[in-house]
Amino acid sequence: MSENRIKIVEKVMNANDRIASQNRQRFDASNTYSINLMASPGAGKTSFILATIHALIDQGVQIGVIEGDTAPVTIDSDKIAAAGMPAIQVNTGGQCHLDAPMIEGALDQLPLDEIDLLVVENVGNLICPAAFELGTHSKIVIASIPEGDDKPYKYPNIYRGLDVLIINKIDLLPYIDFDMDYFRQGVEILNPGLVTFPVSCKTGEGIQDWLTWLTKRLPVKK
Amino acid sequence: MSENRIKIVEKVMNANDRIASQNRQRFDASNTYSINLMASPGAGKTSFILATIHALIDQGVQIGVIEGDTAPVTIDSDKIAAAGMPAIQVNTGGQCHLDAPMIEGALDQLPLDEIDLLVVENVGNLICPAAFELGTHSKIVIASIPEGDDKPYKYPNIYRGLDVLIINKIDLLPYIDFDMDYFRQGVEILNPGLVTFPVSCKTGEGIQDWLTWLTKRLPVKK
Repeated sequence: MSENRIKIVEKVMNANDRIASQNRQRFDASNTYSINLMASPGAGKTSFILATIHALIDQGVQIGVIEGDTAPVTIDSDKIAAAGMPAIQVNTGGQCHLDAPMIEGALDQLPLDEIDLLVVENVGNLICPAAFELGTHSKIVIASIPEGDDKPYKYPNIYRGLDVLIINKIDLLPYIDFDMDYFRQGVEILNPGLVTFPVSCKTGEGIQDWLTWLTKRLPVKK
Repeated sequence: MSENRIKIVEKVMNANDRIASQNRQRFDASNTYSINLMASPGAGKTSFILATIHALIDQGVQIGVIEGDTAPVTIDSDKIAAAGMPAIQVNTGGQCHLDAPMIEGALDQLPLDEIDLLVVENVGNLICPAAFELGTHSKIVIASIPEGDDKPYKYPNIYRGLDVLIINKIDLLPYIDFDMDYFRQGVEILNPGLVTFPVSCKTGEGIQDWLTWLTKRLPVKK
């Protein structure tokens, strides 16, 4: 029976990767740069997306967002819609991560040809999302200063294979014991040379450096 | 096949609940009060346990801790051991929660008869731990101010069936937009009348109220 269960898991994983690869083809076909954004609950994923939208909206960049939530609440997608961008809410039905088929379903509801940047806000969780490819061009984690400096050591899988690490809530550094060297050392072991942007979505500090990185990757649309 | 998979899941759940019930019998037999402590990564679970140990150690209360981690790191259990209390590290092998069999295995390694209070520090996660009974006498969640005031709305399952809610890092309230009324309203819908203790593990504020609640439940040992 144990062998049988392993087979089922392998089947699920293969099906996920196959659909992830189809998702990537759709992003490429529509010239849409896509990001899988992961973090703990409350690290600032939605605030980070909103800061990005507010900075790029005047330049005519079209941003779409897929919001992953474990409960049928629209708190985050309402905020994105209020910022004038299309948001699709995916309710995972209690599951702790998004997977490629969920993204496939959401893409059918988005005007992908008109979207330059698609941000997938994964479920707030440092464990499960690491195991599921969605097909995006890049994977980004937001770490948050109040979570503490030991997170790379405790949740290593989420830091592996990342393209960018955002370190959010640096405005709280004066009030929190956070050893940045210890934190960065933990990240470096898992992901040598990883691009990091310390930011505060509240004050706007550091956001420009992130935008410089991002805009280089956005496609030039006709 | 879908039906087959549901059967397997039900089987796993039943096995878990059966062992949870056995764990409870062991806690009762040894006169040990037991807590399942759940929270997001970095909400302050270990700091809260340490604050509790430091406050009760002089009164001769013996505290044991089971540390759930997804990675083979001993950061938290080292801190507990340094405070002079026995700690057992459970590595979930990447799983996002502890389950009753993992606790059963850990109990075999603890001198349960000598332990008045056993705290199980679950894996840092607001989703998966809610689904697995461990057999403890109470379930406690630590919410953290910097996580934001919308967490009860987004992660409702973890708030249901709780006995106590700790609201940690209240020393950061002056620096963060956190609407306590909105937060409490979300909690109240899910868990009417839930006992809550706003605390700061950093400054010690509020810890005494929690200790008053806790010590009433600790057994009088021979």
